[in-house]
Formats: sequence, C-alpha cells, structure tokens
Amino acid sequence: MGKLFVVGIGPGNYENMTIQADRVLSGCDMIVGYHVYVDLVKDIYPDKEYLSTPMTRETERCRKALAAAAGENKQVAMVCSGDSGIYGMAALIYELSGAYEGVEIEVIPGLTAASSGSALLGAPLTHDFAVISLSDRLTSWEKIETRLDAAARADLSIVIYNPVSRSRPDHLKKACDILLRNLPDDRLCGVARSIGREGQQYEILTLRQLREAQVDMFCTVFIGNAMTKRQGERLITPRGYRDV
Amino acid sequence: MGKLFVVGIGPGNYENMTIQADRVLSGCDMIVGYHVYVDLVKDIYPDKEYLSTPMTRETERCRKALAAAAGENKQVAMVCSGDSGIYGMAALIYELSGAYEGVEIEVIPGLTAASSGSALLGAPLTHDFAVISLSDRLTSWEKIETRLDAAARADLSIVIYNPVSRSRPDHLKKACDILLRNLPDDRLCGVARSIGREGQQYEILTLRQLREAQVDMFCTVFIGNAMTKRQGERLITPRGYRDV
Repeated sequence: MGKLFVVGIGPGNYENMTIQADRVLSGCDMIVGYHVYVDLVKDIYPDKEYLSTPMTRETERCRKALAAAAGENKQVAMVCSGDSGIYGMAALIYELSGAYEGVEIEVIPGLTAASSGSALLGAPLTHDFAVISLSDRLTSWEKIETRLDAAARADLSIVIYNPVSRSRPDHLKKACDILLRNLPDDRLCGVARSIGREGQQYEILTLRQLREAQVDMFCTVFIGNAMTKRQGERLITPRGYRDV
Repeated sequence: MGKLFVVGIGPGNYENMTIQADRVLSGCDMIVGYHVYVDLVKDIYPDKEYLSTPMTRETERCRKALAAAAGENKQVAMVCSGDSGIYGMAALIYELSGAYEGVEIEVIPGLTAASSGSALLGAPLTHDFAVISLSDRLTSWEKIETRLDAAARADLSIVIYNPVSRSRPDHLKKACDILLRNLPDDRLCGVARSIGREGQQYEILTLRQLREAQVDMFCTVFIGNAMTKRQGERLITPRGYRDV
C-alpha cells in the first residue's frame, strides 16, 4: 500500500524541521510540492524523485501526490511550508483521498510562522492569540474584517499570515485601519521577515508605523495585546506572574 | 559568556522535537525545567547536569536558570513543553534577564499543541483560529469568557489549552456553555490526549458531547468553525478550494 505523508517543513531551514519530518523526507521515494518549497528541500535530499507544481494549483498538486502514492505503491511526501495543517494541504489531501484507494495518509506537523516568528521577535505570544490570514482568495474580506475586529476587541494578540501579495498590496494597511478602531496608535507590533532563510530579520514598531511599513509576502506580522512591551531589542507579552 | 536557550521540546517525544532543539540539548551543560518535562528528556540526554523545580514555581525556575548561565559561564537549556514562546517561559526569561549580566538568550521554538494535536485529529486548523487557555491562575475568568465569546461570534476555530485542572474541574463545561450561546449543539469538536506520549488518543465529538466529556490536563481541545466536518475518522476544516 502506498503512503502519503503531508509534511510541514517549518520556516525553511533544516535546523527548524522536526526529527520526524527529516526521517520521512530521508526515507520517502518522491517529494511533491509548490516549487518554492521543493527548492528548499532539494539540496538536503538530492536523490529523490521530485514533482513540483506552480502556485495556486493546490488541488492538482494534491491529486498528483495521491495518484503517485496510490498507483505506484510509493512512499510520497508532500511538503508544505510551516505546519502542514495550519493553512496547509492536509485537509485538502483528506478531502480528495476518497477517490484514491489504498493510500494511507499521515500528517507530520511542522513549526508554523506564529512559533518561529515569535522566537525571532522575542516572545509576543505568551498569552491567548488569534491567527488570521489576509488572503481573500478563498475567504471574503468581510469575514476577515469581522475576525480582526473581534480579536482586537477581545484583547487577543494577533498573528497575521499573508499580509500582502502582488494582487493585494494594500491589505495590511486596510487591516491596520480596522484594528485602529479598537486599538491605540502606539500598540506594539512586530514584523518577522524570511524566518530561517537568507535575509532573515525582524522589526518592532507601533501599529501606526505598521500601517505605513514596507511588508512583503515573506513577512509574518504580530500585533501585541494590551500588555505587550519592548524588553531591550525584543517584543514580549508577559504571562502575568505576580512575583516578577 | 554564558548562554541560556529557552527550548520548546514539542509534545514530548523525541521525533517531534526540532533538529535545532536536539542539537542544543545535546550540546548544553545543564538542563533546567519543571520536573515532568525534565523527565521527558532525561533518558535522551543522560549525561547532563539537571535542575528541576515543582509546578507553579516559574519565577524561581527562571532565576535559577539565568543564575546558572551567568555565574558559571555555562550553556544552559531551559525546557518547556510545546513551544517555549506560546504560554512558555521565554517572555519571563527576558523579563528577569536584566538582573543577570552577561547572559545571551536564545529562544528555540517547538511544536505547540495546536499543531501536534491538529495533526493527530486530521486537519481542523486549515483556516483562521484562536488559541485560548482556560487557566485563570494569571488571567481573570471574565477575560477568558470575553475571548471565547468573541472567537465564537467571529467563526474562528478555537484551540483550548489547559481545559481543566484539579482546582478547576468544571472550566471546560463553563467554556462550552459560553460557546453554546453562539454555536450550535452539533458543532464538531476534537480532543487530543497525551500527544506524542504513552496513551496518545483522540476523539471527535459534538460541542454538546464535549460539555459532558471526561477531559484532563493532558488534553488539548479543538472547536471547529462552521465549515469543519468529519472525513472518515478525521476532523477537517476545508480551506475552501472551489475545484474539490
């Protein structure tokens, strides 16, 4: 029986992969994924069969991975950046799997940008938080707005995935305007860029400054809660221990 | 100069640690932590100096780790379960570090239960979600209630950490009652228990059933959004691809 592993590779560097993800990628016959993620692992596991598909062809990519595992009785790994469950391909693989008999599926989790970006910035997620994507390709902007609004009102820290893209360059600005209805101008925020990859850097700034910041699709954005503060060069949210 | 690594070890098994966490724990001189987490790593790295402290002594534990790294010029690793940033010790270490000169701090992220539990259940977090702890030791119950309410109204999936403890056995029941104000009885939920450890198991159930479920402090609870469904034996939240 073929097996399909849906593997979260974390932010992109070898060190931030889990031991399990490394073992699965070392042991599999074939690696499938969006070409950017495939390129990240090709140097580490050069002797594999590779199959990459362009962006936005998610369903096609999943069908190819399932077909490879089903028809050819192979051990196939589909790679996703970050966690394979959080905005990843795991749910779509399960949804499509009914049409492919005899494929066992296993989801291998990976570090999502909320974790890896948080570690880079300091520790902004010590308390309750929401993770919200600004991509309106599959979600209405109205729904995204409702969620941003609710999270800000409830004093949740917020991690923003997909803050902008070529086709929606002003989404982060729009999101900041929504947040500014309930949050102060000087609420502390952070931007983590190219986590674990070349050009990794981070910035701490206010919500007002974030509205004007140059942010690209390699960035993950953090909005602090009411307790979030700057500690030296780091952004931290205290848990609230009374004996500090 | 001494160095203190704040290491997220993930759910508890070696395979779900990152390669970086493994390297740090292999290379350090001393491992500090809550005794349950220290016991999880002692068998893997037997030749280390160990220092463990009881539960709720977080500030004391962090001060001891900082002092060991500062005074003795050691490489010290403080271990946290899950991610060291998400409800972990990283922020407290930064807050206390001012009193200890010459200690470099590095946060090593790990798999948080939202990721590892999600992979066990299927893929319930493919879309926006909130992470909320029910521990009212450091947070007012009123604030927790506000956050649960906001997340449910905004159709966020919800991951509940610390659903119950010995001193608050009915917290999950109270949380379900809050959620039931806005969510239907049959909203799909999941419970992941002892992820990556002996006795690992999961259960898919409705919100009404969750209210009556036997849940302990080794459980992480998932509340689906309006799209969450059962696919075979798994709980999944579709991302919304139109060509499925």
